Amino acid sequence: MGEFDIIQQYFTGWDEPRSEVILGIGDDAAILEIPSTHHLVVTTDMLIAGVHFPHETSPADIAYKALAVNLSDLAAMGARPGWITLILSLPEVNHKWLQEFSNALCECTKFYHVTLIGGDTNKGPLSVTIQAMGQIPKDKSLRRNGAKAGDWLYCTGTLGDAALGLALIQNKRTVTNKQYKNYLIGRLNRPTPRVGIGLSLRQGASSAIDISDGLMQDLQHILTASGNLGATINLDSLPLSEAFKTTLDEISAWEMALSGGDDFELLFTISPENKSLLETSLENSGSDYTCIGRITGNKGIQLQSGGNNISLNWNGYDHFESQ
Amino acid sequence: MGEFDIIQQYFTGWDEPRSEVILGIGDDAAILEIPSTHHLVVTTDMLIAGVHFPHETSPADIAYKALAVNLSDLAAMGARPGWITLILSLPEVNHKWLQEFSNALCECTKFYHVTLIGGDTNKGPLSVTIQAMGQIPKDKSLRRNGAKAGDWLYCTGTLGDAALGLALIQNKRTVTNKQYKNYLIGRLNRPTPRVGIGLSLRQGASSAIDISDGLMQDLQHILTASGNLGATINLDSLPLSEAFKTTLDEISAWEMALSGGDDFELLFTISPENKSLLETSLENSGSDYTCIGRITGNKGIQLQSGGNNISLNWNGYDHFESQ
Repeated sequence: MGEFDIIQQYFTGWDEPRSEVILGIGDDAAILEIPSTHHLVVTTDMLIAGVHFPHETSPADIAYKALAVNLSDLAAMGARPGWITLILSLPEVNHKWLQEFSNALCECTKFYHVTLIGGDTNKGPLSVTIQAMGQIPKDKSLRRNGAKAGDWLYCTGTLGDAALGLALIQNKRTVTNKQYKNYLIGRLNRPTPRVGIGLSLRQGASSAIDISDGLMQDLQHILTASGNLGATINLDSLPLSEAFKTTLDEISAWEMALSGGDDFELLFTISPENKSLLETSLENSGSDYTCIGRITGNKGIQLQSGGNNISLNWNGYDHFESQ
Repeated sequence: MGEFDIIQQYFTGWDEPRSEVILGIGDDAAILEIPSTHHLVVTTDMLIAGVHFPHETSPADIAYKALAVNLSDLAAMGARPGWITLILSLPEVNHKWLQEFSNALCECTKFYHVTLIGGDTNKGPLSVTIQAMGQIPKDKSLRRNGAKAGDWLYCTGTLGDAALGLALIQNKRTVTNKQYKNYLIGRLNRPTPRVGIGLSLRQGASSAIDISDGLMQDLQHILTASGNLGATINLDSLPLSEAFKTTLDEISAWEMALSGGDDFELLFTISPENKSLLETSLENSGSDYTCIGRITGNKGIQLQSGGNNISLNWNGYDHFESQ
């Protein structure tokens, strides 16, 4: 079975394409119409077996995550997702794998209303690369470099779940409660791209990024890009799931919440002037968010609990392979 | 050395970005402005070590080819290239490799006036994926499905050189003339994306495709997409290089010219009404092209030489690994 047959059998005949798709799968390239009121937003992420996910990960989970991590990047820009390309490298033509993978990807594209417009399929070590494209009204994008001293620091969802889920898979931690275990591994395999919150944040967040490398590292990206600012984080306010809190002692929980990657929550800043307006907007849209600290003019990130400075042993997240 | 340092050291500070780049490398996603008079054209191709190129291929050749094969797809649509993303998977951080690769890619992006706007860098088996984006005036794109019975069939450049270059590398053929040998391997490693010809073809070609899988296979794509048409090919007119003709007997030369992949020449059709106008336009632009046959209403591809039907043993091109 050649590339053409694989594409024909598994990756065509999905939903109606979005209206902007002038030409989809099947020619040398795809053609899109970008509304003249909008900019095109482009991101790409590759997931490699044994590096970004364990080899035994289900094809459906791989498909979901490959899409989710890309949509998360678009969300962090405030963009509305529209179109994706898919580059598959497969060691062999495994029909069961392809069917499960394509079913899951098809389902996810429907949910997020994105259209698969092209890609490439090859024989090689297992990897899945998606390039996601979206649109945003001109000059409405969220950048990393807009934070200012005095801005409030927020994140969505809960932190550290994915890192703990990975530790469970790797037998480095144990959780006996089956529901908790499933929840944590689910957070690793099926992160939620915060597309809706990204759209809401266009109305007044000063900066945003998605947490893929861990809160501390990604916060540092905002601080550096915004002119070498600093921040204080209130450890007591870090949003932690029940499954996470129940499994770890307080210090370990903090450390993993600060350093764990793959949560794909959004980290963003809001100026004091925009605080109540944007919080109201986020609450009205049912968004799940927490104020966890504040941007300062002093370089460095200060961790606090109960009003006291705390020193913790955190470090940046490394991918699966090296953990 | 982490991903951020690699990007910083090797993939930033190149040429001035194109004017449409609102935001380039360094945030969660890149932002582009697509002129409202144009459509966006998107294609992607992955090159995997050991599959699409031998492991010993130089980093500069890999960089060149990864860009060229994508620009060739844009050329086949008649699009003007504009922007690329780069997804690298590298077994290790090899500075010499990265320097040579990035130098070559930087040089090629300057030559074709495309801007690197983002990407992803990972630890994994060696592969290079580029997604190329370009623009085309609305409704000017070249498709596979526009050929009609009676249209003339053309290709650019010469055919089969890349396949013979691969056979040399694999020691399946021998060429003693060093200049010929270098030429043939150069055609494999450094195919010329026919961007300028693609732009000229907008003025009246009825269909176009790039020859990546071999003339016969790619012609079949045009024929199938255009409503199950057929074609006659005049073998005597197949454009063959001196190095190619000198190495092979006539039958082997025809077979390899018909089946060899990786030439990345354009294959296109022109209606009898547009023939002289478009040929004049191609000649004025100094383009290298040949009329090799004609589209027919009868399904199937008929090979002819000296007015007689010829039967040859050709088959589709398989990638490096299986040859």
